[in-house]
Amino acid sequence: MRGRRPGKCDTRGEILARARELFQEQGYAKTSMRSIARASNVDPSLMHHYFSCKSELFSECLLGKPTDFVPEEIADEVFQTTPVGELGNKLVLTMITAWESPGVSAAIRANLMSIGEDRLLVSQLQAAIRGIIGGRLAARMGDIDHVNLRASLVISQMVGLAIARYVFVEESDLARMEPQEIAEIMGPTIQRYLVGDVGV
Amino acid sequence: MRGRRPGKCDTRGEILARARELFQEQGYAKTSMRSIARASNVDPSLMHHYFSCKSELFSECLLGKPTDFVPEEIADEVFQTTPVGELGNKLVLTMITAWESPGVSAAIRANLMSIGEDRLLVSQLQAAIRGIIGGRLAARMGDIDHVNLRASLVISQMVGLAIARYVFVEESDLARMEPQEIAEIMGPTIQRYLVGDVGV
Repeated sequence: MRGRRPGKCDTRGEILARARELFQEQGYAKTSMRSIARASNVDPSLMHHYFSCKSELFSECLLGKPTDFVPEEIADEVFQTTPVGELGNKLVLTMITAWESPGVSAAIRANLMSIGEDRLLVSQLQAAIRGIIGGRLAARMGDIDHVNLRASLVISQMVGLAIARYVFVEESDLARMEPQEIAEIMGPTIQRYLVGDVGV
Repeated sequence: MRGRRPGKCDTRGEILARARELFQEQGYAKTSMRSIARASNVDPSLMHHYFSCKSELFSECLLGKPTDFVPEEIADEVFQTTPVGELGNKLVLTMITAWESPGVSAAIRANLMSIGEDRLLVSQLQAAIRGIIGGRLAARMGDIDHVNLRASLVISQMVGLAIARYVFVEESDLARMEPQEIAEIMGPTIQRYLVGDVGV
């Protein structure tokens, strides 16, 4: 287990830690709220006191601390310190690096497709990430137009990259290339989606 | 049901027709070889005489005739008749049109994420589509370099677009825009992946 160990009274932290392990080992689809309750020594009927549903719990596992993948921090790192002309390349490289960090890698690989079957979770994650990217982009670029569309375009290419790299593992050049090579290739795409002419 | 009705002796066609209906109604994950056998009035033990596994049967349902989505024909239409400078825009528009044709739309929507859990199927589909795009690209463009990588890049953005449009339905601008608008926006990306400088 990564990160701080929850104290004896930190039931919520204990649930999160056990959930993270189970999602990583079994995948999202096969992990039930009941099994997480059992692993955490929490009465199943009390689980909803802490998390309203499995998708909320998973979101917290994926996006909350302690993990290496905190989209707010990734977005801050990219948008606050990178020259505007290098935002695309930097975002691609930073995302791949985060995805492949030890705390995230297995969870992403185990769950990338199965989380897609949970509509509520997909909707929450997509909205959250779009908001994070769009918010940072607007903060950096002032009155840039089409912020939501730009964020959606970035997400579409990054989701496609994640699938090409972690799901099409055996067949895809994109699974085998170095992060820096992919950043060189996809950087211009993300750069245009972020700050270029998107033609609408 | 779309397309020709199978004759009495066309057991293979009958299986395919029933499988297409079941995949569309229930989704890939929930449809078993046994339930397809039952719907087709074929002894379950004989199913493997016609199709070695569920992923092969699904590939045939998705990519074989009669459907509106035959990637070879789509690729031929795009690569044989489009001016080189318009390949990207045309490919995006043609793909969206095919995905949203009556015979494909529901099957794509029902199965886009659940097929991702079947590694063999994903591997087959990805290799098939990469080969189709790469083959047509090479035929049109002669000695163009990095054909496999270019095809993988195109697939990564098209898969991301499909997910943005059909899975992130409630949250994504890309779900609501007209196909022609998306072709204008993503065309330059696909154009560069197909025939531009990919920086390797």
